[in-house]
Amino acid sequence: MAGNSFGNLFKLTTFGESHGVAIGGIIDGCPSGLEVDFDAIQAELNRRKPGQSEIVTQRKEPDTVEFLSGIFEGKTTGTPIGFSIQNANQKSKDYSHIKDVYRPSHADYTYEKKYGIRDYRGGGRSSARETASRVVAGALAKQFLKSVKIHAYTSSVGDIFLEKPYQDLDFSQIESNVIRCPDPETAERMIDRIKAIKKQGNTIGGTITCVLQNVPAGLGEPVFDKLHAELGKAMLSINAVKGFEYGSGFCGAKMTGTEHNDLFNADGSTKTNLSGGIQGGISNGMDIYFRVAFKPVATVIQKQEALNSRGELVDMQGKGRHDPCVVPRAVPIVEAMAALVLADYYLLNNTNK
Amino acid sequence: MAGNSFGNLFKLTTFGESHGVAIGGIIDGCPSGLEVDFDAIQAELNRRKPGQSEIVTQRKEPDTVEFLSGIFEGKTTGTPIGFSIQNANQKSKDYSHIKDVYRPSHADYTYEKKYGIRDYRGGGRSSARETASRVVAGALAKQFLKSVKIHAYTSSVGDIFLEKPYQDLDFSQIESNVIRCPDPETAERMIDRIKAIKKQGNTIGGTITCVLQNVPAGLGEPVFDKLHAELGKAMLSINAVKGFEYGSGFCGAKMTGTEHNDLFNADGSTKTNLSGGIQGGISNGMDIYFRVAFKPVATVIQKQEALNSRGELVDMQGKGRHDPCVVPRAVPIVEAMAALVLADYYLLNNTNK
Amino acid sequence: MAGNSFGNLFKLTTFGESHGVAIGGIIDGCPSGLEVDFDAIQAELNRRKPGQSEIVTQRKEPDTVEFLSGIFEGKTTGTPIGFSIQNANQKSKDYSHIKDVYRPSHADYTYEKKYGIRDYRGGGRSSARETASRVVAGALAKQFLKSVKIHAYTSSVGDIFLEKPYQDLDFSQIESNVIRCPDPETAERMIDRIKAIKKQGNTIGGTITCVLQNVPAGLGEPVFDKLHAELGKAMLSINAVKGFEYGSGFCGAKMTGTEHNDLFNADGSTKTNLSGGIQGGISNGMDIYFRVAFKPVATVIQKQEALNSRGELVDMQGKGRHDPCVVPRAVPIVEAMAALVLADYYLLNNTNK
Amino acid sequence: MAGNSFGNLFKLTTFGESHGVAIGGIIDGCPSGLEVDFDAIQAELNRRKPGQSEIVTQRKEPDTVEFLSGIFEGKTTGTPIGFSIQNANQKSKDYSHIKDVYRPSHADYTYEKKYGIRDYRGGGRSSARETASRVVAGALAKQFLKSVKIHAYTSSVGDIFLEKPYQDLDFSQIESNVIRCPDPETAERMIDRIKAIKKQGNTIGGTITCVLQNVPAGLGEPVFDKLHAELGKAMLSINAVKGFEYGSGFCGAKMTGTEHNDLFNADGSTKTNLSGGIQGGISNGMDIYFRVAFKPVATVIQKQEALNSRGELVDMQGKGRHDPCVVPRAVPIVEAMAALVLADYYLLNNTNK
Repeated sequence: MAGNSFGNLFKLTTFGESHGVAIGGIIDGCPSGLEVDFDAIQAELNRRKPGQSEIVTQRKEPDTVEFLSGIFEGKTTGTPIGFSIQNANQKSKDYSHIKDVYRPSHADYTYEKKYGIRDYRGGGRSSARETASRVVAGALAKQFLKSVKIHAYTSSVGDIFLEKPYQDLDFSQIESNVIRCPDPETAERMIDRIKAIKKQGNTIGGTITCVLQNVPAGLGEPVFDKLHAELGKAMLSINAVKGFEYGSGFCGAKMTGTEHNDLFNADGSTKTNLSGGIQGGISNGMDIYFRVAFKPVATVIQKQEALNSRGELVDMQGKGRHDPCVVPRAVPIVEAMAALVLADYYLLNNTNK
Repeated sequence: MAGNSFGNLFKLTTFGESHGVAIGGIIDGCPSGLEVDFDAIQAELNRRKPGQSEIVTQRKEPDTVEFLSGIFEGKTTGTPIGFSIQNANQKSKDYSHIKDVYRPSHADYTYEKKYGIRDYRGGGRSSARETASRVVAGALAKQFLKSVKIHAYTSSVGDIFLEKPYQDLDFSQIESNVIRCPDPETAERMIDRIKAIKKQGNTIGGTITCVLQNVPAGLGEPVFDKLHAELGKAMLSINAVKGFEYGSGFCGAKMTGTEHNDLFNADGSTKTNLSGGIQGGISNGMDIYFRVAFKPVATVIQKQEALNSRGELVDMQGKGRHDPCVVPRAVPIVEAMAALVLADYYLLNNTNK
Repeated sequence: MAGNSFGNLFKLTTFGESHGVAIGGIIDGCPSGLEVDFDAIQAELNRRKPGQSEIVTQRKEPDTVEFLSGIFEGKTTGTPIGFSIQNANQKSKDYSHIKDVYRPSHADYTYEKKYGIRDYRGGGRSSARETASRVVAGALAKQFLKSVKIHAYTSSVGDIFLEKPYQDLDFSQIESNVIRCPDPETAERMIDRIKAIKKQGNTIGGTITCVLQNVPAGLGEPVFDKLHAELGKAMLSINAVKGFEYGSGFCGAKMTGTEHNDLFNADGSTKTNLSGGIQGGISNGMDIYFRVAFKPVATVIQKQEALNSRGELVDMQGKGRHDPCVVPRAVPIVEAMAALVLADYYLLNNTNK
Repeated sequence: MAGNSFGNLFKLTTFGESHGVAIGGIIDGCPSGLEVDFDAIQAELNRRKPGQSEIVTQRKEPDTVEFLSGIFEGKTTGTPIGFSIQNANQKSKDYSHIKDVYRPSHADYTYEKKYGIRDYRGGGRSSARETASRVVAGALAKQFLKSVKIHAYTSSVGDIFLEKPYQDLDFSQIESNVIRCPDPETAERMIDRIKAIKKQGNTIGGTITCVLQNVPAGLGEPVFDKLHAELGKAMLSINAVKGFEYGSGFCGAKMTGTEHNDLFNADGSTKTNLSGGIQGGISNGMDIYFRVAFKPVATVIQKQEALNSRGELVDMQGKGRHDPCVVPRAVPIVEAMAALVLADYYLLNNTNK
C-alpha cells in the first residue's frame, strides 16, 4: 500500500535511499527452475550506471548487485530473490546545504508535507537511484520472458525527433551510441544538443519509444487492469515521466474511425497496427509500442531560488555531476518496467486454466 | 487479480455485461457516517447515459441505480455498498450476425484468444456500458472528497482544439452544451464536426482535460504508486483511451530545466505549475491537471471487412445507435475515475499517523 | 482492505445486510469455459437455509440465488460473476427494541465503536446471513475443483463427541440426518441434545470436522500463506468460530517427535498422517483434515442483561426463531470456505510455470 | 501472491534461506517519525537466537540485524525499511547426505513437488530461520504500538500444563527461566521434561498462550478479515503450528449460550471474557488472548526411515544441534506476529475517517 511494490505474481519490492547503506529489493514469484544469467543482469545495470559516458552524470557508483537468496546452483528455486547494491557515495559529500531547503520541482517539499521528515542526502528515496533495483528485477523478468523481445530507444531530445517509425529502425544500433538512438545521424544531433545544454549548466527533456515483440495474444485483463493501463502506470512511476501514449496515442484522438480501425488479415494479424498490439486491454499478437515523455532534470547548475523550511526564498545552485538529460540512462529502466509488466501478466494468464 | 477491482482502501469491484441481466458493483471501504446524496449520484449517471443528446448514441437505457446494502437511514455504515443497474436492452436485439465475427479494432478477437469464449451481445464485458458502475462509485467518492473540486471537459474533437488554458475557462459552462466544452464558440464547432462525421457513418476521436482543485499537499505514494501513475492507470483503463499526460506532459519533454522548474512562492505555492500539482509522485497543493486521448469509436456504419472464426474475411456494417464520438459521455467517467483515485489516496494518507 | 473479499485469484467479494434489499457478491477470477450446474449451487444454499429442520431457526427465507453476469449459455466466460439473493424478511419485523441496545456477546457494541453507526436490524452485516454468499461462491469453486472431494460433518455438539476417526465414517450418511453427523447413533444423541437445549430457550456449541481428499501435492505457499494458515483464516472468518486445528492439532502438542513423524511409503504417501496432508504449508497428496470449534449462539430466549447506548444495563430477551446450535447449518459453509481456499491455491499453482 | 509478505498497511516481506548469504526483509508502511530503539529490536532477536540455553539448539548464529534504509537520524522516514541478517553457518557443514532425501514430516518432499528444485541445506527456505526476520519486524511493530502490551509464554510442554489462567500470572516472570513459563514451579518441570526428551534424542511439542492488553476497541474488520482470523493465520504461518484458539476456544464449543455470553458492565467492559476480547471480528477493549499448538520438531536423533528421490526408503539419523522443543524460542515469534497483526489493523482503522 505504501507503494514500494510492483506487480502481483511476479512482484518486486524495493528499498533504499540514495545515500543510505544500500539499495535493493525482493523479487517474489519468479518461477522456479529458471537458469539465471548473472552477467546479463549486471550488463543491464551497467546500461543504467552513472559515469558511462560524457553526456550523463560523472558520479561514480560501481552498482554491483549481490544476490542474497532464492537462487541455488544457478537456478531460481521459487523462493524470494533478495538482492542488494551497496551505495559507494554513502558518506562522500556534505549535504547540509540542502538540509532545510526545498529545491524547485524536486520532491523535497512534498516529502516534507507527507512525512514530516526526510533523508535529504542526495534526494533520499526520491532519487532515481531507486531505479537500479528495478533494472535488476527487469533483467531477470527478461530472462523469464525468453522469446519476447523488448527494445527501448531515445526517440527525441528537446525538439530533435527521430522521425522514422520503429519498423524502419535497426534495433541492433541502439547501443552503438551513448544516447541510445538507433539512427546514427539523429543520435549525433541529440548528443550535440545535450553537450551544449550541459555547457550552459542546464538540462533538457526527451522521449523514449519502446517496442515489445513476440508477445503472445491474450495477455492482459480487460477492465481496470488493461495491459496498456498497467504499462502506463509502470512508465509513469519512473522518475521525471510526464506522459504515456501507446499505439496511435494522442494522434489517434485526431483521427476518424475508418482511418483508425486496423483491418484483419485472414491469419488474425492486422494490416495496420494503430491499436498498438492491444485491443480491449488484451494483447492481440501484434507489436506493442508506446512512447514515454521525460521532463528535463530539475537540478540545474544555474542559480535558482529555492524555499527553506522557515518560509524564506533563498538562492541556490546545483552542484556538478547531475545528468543533463535522463533519457539515455532511462532506456534500460523503461525496458525493465515493461518486462516486469509482461512477466506479471504472463503468469496471470496461466491462471485462466 | 482478474482486474475487475480498482483501488485499495476505497475499492470498487464491478460486474456485468452489456446485455446481461444487470451491471453493478460493490464499493468497499467507504467510511461510515457519510450522508449520501442519491440525486447527485443519479445526476452523474445521467451525464453518461445514452440518448441524452443528438451527438451521442440514441440507444435507450434508463440507467437507474439501485443500492442494495451499506447505506442505512441515508448514511453509509462502513459496510460494503452493493448496487445494480438493470439492463433494459437485454433481449431487444439479435446479435447472431456478430456471433462468430471479430470486428476490427474491437476486443472480440482478443477476448476469444484469452478466454476461448465470449458473450458477443453488444460487446459483452468489453462494452463501455461497464463504466456506468464506475460513475456510480465515482459520484460517491466525490461526496466523500467534499472540498476537492473535480472538473473534466472536452478539450478537442478531431483537430478542433480548445486552445485556452484551463485557468481561462469558466467551468460552470461545461454543462451548458452537449459536447461539454466550457468555451461556447469552440463547443459549437466541435458539435458541428461530430454531426458531420455522424452523417458520414463515421466516428472521430478527441481529448478530455481534467482539473483537480483543493487537493491537499501530501497525497500519493512516492515510488511505484505515484499519484500521477495511478491517475494514468485509471484513465488508461477507460475504454478507447490511447494516451495520458499531466502537467507539462509531452510538451515538457521539449523544454529545458530552467524553463520547466516551478519556482516557489514564500507560502509553498509555486509561481508556475508545469509540475501539474505533483512532485515526486506526491501532491503539492497546486492544481492537478491532466489530459486524456480517446481514439475514434471502432464501430462505423460504413462497410468494413471483419474476420470470422473460420479465418474468413467477411464484409460487415455497424448498425445505428452508436456514439459518433465518445468524448461527451466520457467526461463524467474521467471525473469518476479521478475521484476514485483521490479517495483511495486520501484514506491511505490517514494511515501515516 | 475493508475485508469483504476473500481469495486472490479465485476471489469472492460479498455485500449485504440481514434486512437490507439483498445480499450477494462478485466472484472474480473463475476460469472461463466451466459448465455451471445451477441446481448444485442452489442445493448447497438449501443445506444452509433457515427452516430446513426442527433443530434450526424457523425463519423463512427462500434463499434463491440469481446470477447477473459472467455466465453465458451455461458456461463461465472468465468475466466477473455477479449474483444476488433477495432478502424476504426485509420489512417483516420491528427491530426498534434493539435499536439502542448492545446485546451480550454480539457485535452490536464493537460495530458501534468501530463505525459509530450500525444497521441494527437482525444483526445487519454481522448476521450469519452473509455466509449465504459464501456458499454460492464455494459451490462454484467445488465445480471448478472437480476431482477434489470435500466433506464436512458435525463432530460434536456440546459434550457429545463423534469418537470415530474420519476414516471409519461413511460420508454418504452425512445428509441422512438433520445434524449432519455421519454416525446415525451419535447423530440421534446430538439432535436430542439440541432439542432439549432449545426447549430451555438456550443454545449450545459444537465442532465440525472437514476432510479434503484428492488434493494434488504441491498446493500452498510455504511462508506466510501456508495452505493450513489460509484454511485457518477461512474457518475463523465464519461467524461464531473460536478455534481451528488440522492434522494432529492440539493433541500433537503433547506428542514426541518419534510418535508424530509420518514415515514414508515408497510411493511418497505416508504410513500415518498426523501432518494432516500438509508439510511446510504445502499439500503432500494425503488427505487434509481439520476441525473447527463453534461457540453457542449468543441469542438466547432466557432473559439476560444488555447495555444500552446511554450506559444503562437493561433486561432483554431474545425472540424466537434463532438457531439453538449453528453447527448443522454451518457444515456447508465450512465446505464452501475450504473450496474457495483450494480453488485459489489451485490457480496460484498454475503460475509457477 | 507467492506468500512471502504479511500485512497490508504495515507490511513485511521476507527473503532468505537457512544457509544462503543472508536472510532479511523489507518493512513497508511503518509510519514516519517513529524513534527506533535498536537495542530493543536486537533484544527480541536474542530471545529467538539459537544457543541461548541448554534446552535449545546449540548452533551458533550471532543474528545481528543491520538496517539498510528507511531510518534517518534514528527515526523512521516513512520509506521502506530494508534489513538483513548474515548467515554465519553458510558453509559450515556438509549437507550432501540429505541432498536427495526427503526427511519424514519435513517440507523436503512438498517443496520438491511444488518447485521441482530446492535448496536442501538446512531446510533452505522452510527452515524456521526465516522467523528471525519476523522478529525484527515485530519488534518494530511493538514500538509503533506503544501502549499495547503483548505477552506470550509457554503454557504447556508435552502433557505438563500451566493450569493457572493468565490473570493469575506475573508476566514479569516470563523471562526468569529458559522455558519462558511465568510459573517457576511449572517451568522447572517443563525444563526437566525437555532435558529428558533431549537425552533420548527425541523432541516434544507444546503450546504458547499470548495475551494482548490495552488494545483499543474497534480494531478488526468484520467479515473475512476478522481480527481473530488474521491472528489465527499469523500464528498458523509459524513453523510447526498445528492449532489456534482464542477466548473460550475449543472449550467454548462444549458450552451453552447462557454460560458463554459475556454480560456487560455499565462502562462497556464485560464481567467475563469468554469472547477473548473480540466480538464479530472487532476488538471490544477487553484483553485478547489465544493459544497456539506446536508439534514436536521433526528432526530426531533416533534413526528413522526416509525416502530418497529414487523412491527408495533409506535409514537416516538427525545430527545434533536441533531444538528438542521449539516452544521457548517460539515465544518471541508469537509476540512478533501478534504485533504485526495489530499494527496493520491499527493503521487500517485510521482509514475509517
